[in-house]
Amino acid sequence: MAVYTNVSDEQLADFLKNYDLGNAISFKGIAEGVENTNFLLETDTGRYILTLYEKRVNTDDLPFFLNLIDHMAKKDIACPTPIAAKDGATLYSCAGRPAALFTFLNGMSVRVPTAHHCARLGTSMAQFHQAGQSFPQGRENSFSIAGLRKFYENLAGDLDSIMPNMRTMIEAELECLEKLWPTSLPSGIIHADLFPDNVFFLEDKISGLIDFYFACTDFLSLDLAITINAWCFENDASFNVTKAARLLNAYNKIRPITKAEIDSFPIISRAAALRFLLTRSHDWLLPNEGALVMKKDPKEYLRKLKFHQSIENPKSYGLSNAL
Amino acid sequence: MAVYTNVSDEQLADFLKNYDLGNAISFKGIAEGVENTNFLLETDTGRYILTLYEKRVNTDDLPFFLNLIDHMAKKDIACPTPIAAKDGATLYSCAGRPAALFTFLNGMSVRVPTAHHCARLGTSMAQFHQAGQSFPQGRENSFSIAGLRKFYENLAGDLDSIMPNMRTMIEAELECLEKLWPTSLPSGIIHADLFPDNVFFLEDKISGLIDFYFACTDFLSLDLAITINAWCFENDASFNVTKAARLLNAYNKIRPITKAEIDSFPIISRAAALRFLLTRSHDWLLPNEGALVMKKDPKEYLRKLKFHQSIENPKSYGLSNAL
Repeated sequence: MAVYTNVSDEQLADFLKNYDLGNAISFKGIAEGVENTNFLLETDTGRYILTLYEKRVNTDDLPFFLNLIDHMAKKDIACPTPIAAKDGATLYSCAGRPAALFTFLNGMSVRVPTAHHCARLGTSMAQFHQAGQSFPQGRENSFSIAGLRKFYENLAGDLDSIMPNMRTMIEAELECLEKLWPTSLPSGIIHADLFPDNVFFLEDKISGLIDFYFACTDFLSLDLAITINAWCFENDASFNVTKAARLLNAYNKIRPITKAEIDSFPIISRAAALRFLLTRSHDWLLPNEGALVMKKDPKEYLRKLKFHQSIENPKSYGLSNAL
Repeated sequence: MAVYTNVSDEQLADFLKNYDLGNAISFKGIAEGVENTNFLLETDTGRYILTLYEKRVNTDDLPFFLNLIDHMAKKDIACPTPIAAKDGATLYSCAGRPAALFTFLNGMSVRVPTAHHCARLGTSMAQFHQAGQSFPQGRENSFSIAGLRKFYENLAGDLDSIMPNMRTMIEAELECLEKLWPTSLPSGIIHADLFPDNVFFLEDKISGLIDFYFACTDFLSLDLAITINAWCFENDASFNVTKAARLLNAYNKIRPITKAEIDSFPIISRAAALRFLLTRSHDWLLPNEGALVMKKDPKEYLRKLKFHQSIENPKSYGLSNAL
């Protein structure tokens, strides 16, 4: 949740001149999206979301993200659709930041997802992955194993201030993942950040996915591992195998999970946990001043990582039930 | 702008059980209101604002505020109207905080008000003051002269860290105001915080006033002085007498400004400037952690205070044009 940039009534009016959407009737900064500033805008023609891209998003990546969202919307993946300006462009600038307008999406995220929500998510993710197969662009995952190594090295000196021995533990984990990382698994566009915040539900059905700004090309099962981490652990850090099984089973019905994906799932899940352990450690050590971003305890992902390290058989994820 | 308290989907559903408004379709934290947390809520029946009252608002004052807003709405002062729950109450609790629901108000605040906006404000304020005359409750102004003295004394030791000699200067100003403060002027309910943020416009007309949480009983001209301070100085600290004259003239057409109010206007304006100088100094020295509140430079109000101190004739406010 963040509001980084203020937009004045004049700046908004200037921006809207690029579009055929009429005049602003209402305009409110909303606490949605960690990387960007978002506004709920109502004009004579309807409701929209105005997104201002802040420094943490690389401007060069914006065409990829906007094209991807547009592609997904055309493939009937429910998500906010970029709105074209009079000249056809979807990326403009507002208040000195790159900016884009999107359709408004009804629905709300759930704080405590049930097994039913997890099953819905499994279906949506499989549809998302299938739709991504025909997307012609690609984007490297900044949090690939090589990316995690780089991210870790910038942070290493400070890690033990979060918890004793954290540095040694993460170093060992990285070495292990580098050794065991699969060379080939089904790949394609992954969302890479499908936390409950980024999935809207309406009457227990998914009304849309939002916040595509970590999307990249990588193993599809990494997306599954990220969501299993985010959706299937309880607040006491216990693993809810029913939720995982429902998610994986629903996914598998649309896009069958391969034997190689099953075998490597504990390793992939460890990499997914390490990714959030590292980025949360970064945000814990270097909080983003001026933005309303709740600091999240990195140790939550340490506990998840330890769970995945303890897995001896991929069936522990409920895959045997799912497949 | 602040979002202090998160509300989960479950907490919202529990809260909505008290009302006949249907289920939530959309729910977003909005960056509006400095003292409270506000959400834009859409249900099957329409759009609403959910306000959660945070610690800076005294819970004992909430019935006064809610009754006042309701009174003003019934007197056709455009403002968000409190929505009654099934049992008729307008104050409930949500996510552990006192909470109220309001009608949604179209419109947007203006960042750089023009003389035209100032005239509209003058009219609205006079209507507000007149409507307040029939409101049966009262509330002491925490920032009366006695209140300012108390507020100052808690802060005095740190003031010079903002600027050398600030303590001596404010002490002298307080003594002067205590000596010169009028004993009797037309009084009633004042909004006491009609900054541009709290006034919504739609097509150059005022669509509503918001944020009544400083409203209190005091001299009506204190409200005028607060708005003159907030609306009629340019960014370079110069005083725009055209804006002030338009505001006062429009006000005067509805509620004639008395001779005693004119004579005392420089003193009242100094007290209004001192009030924001002190509260901004407080927020500057003790920023409110965890909330997205932009620190505002207290020295802006020091410059305004000095302007009012330099006034020898109330005509300098444009009153001669206005009356």
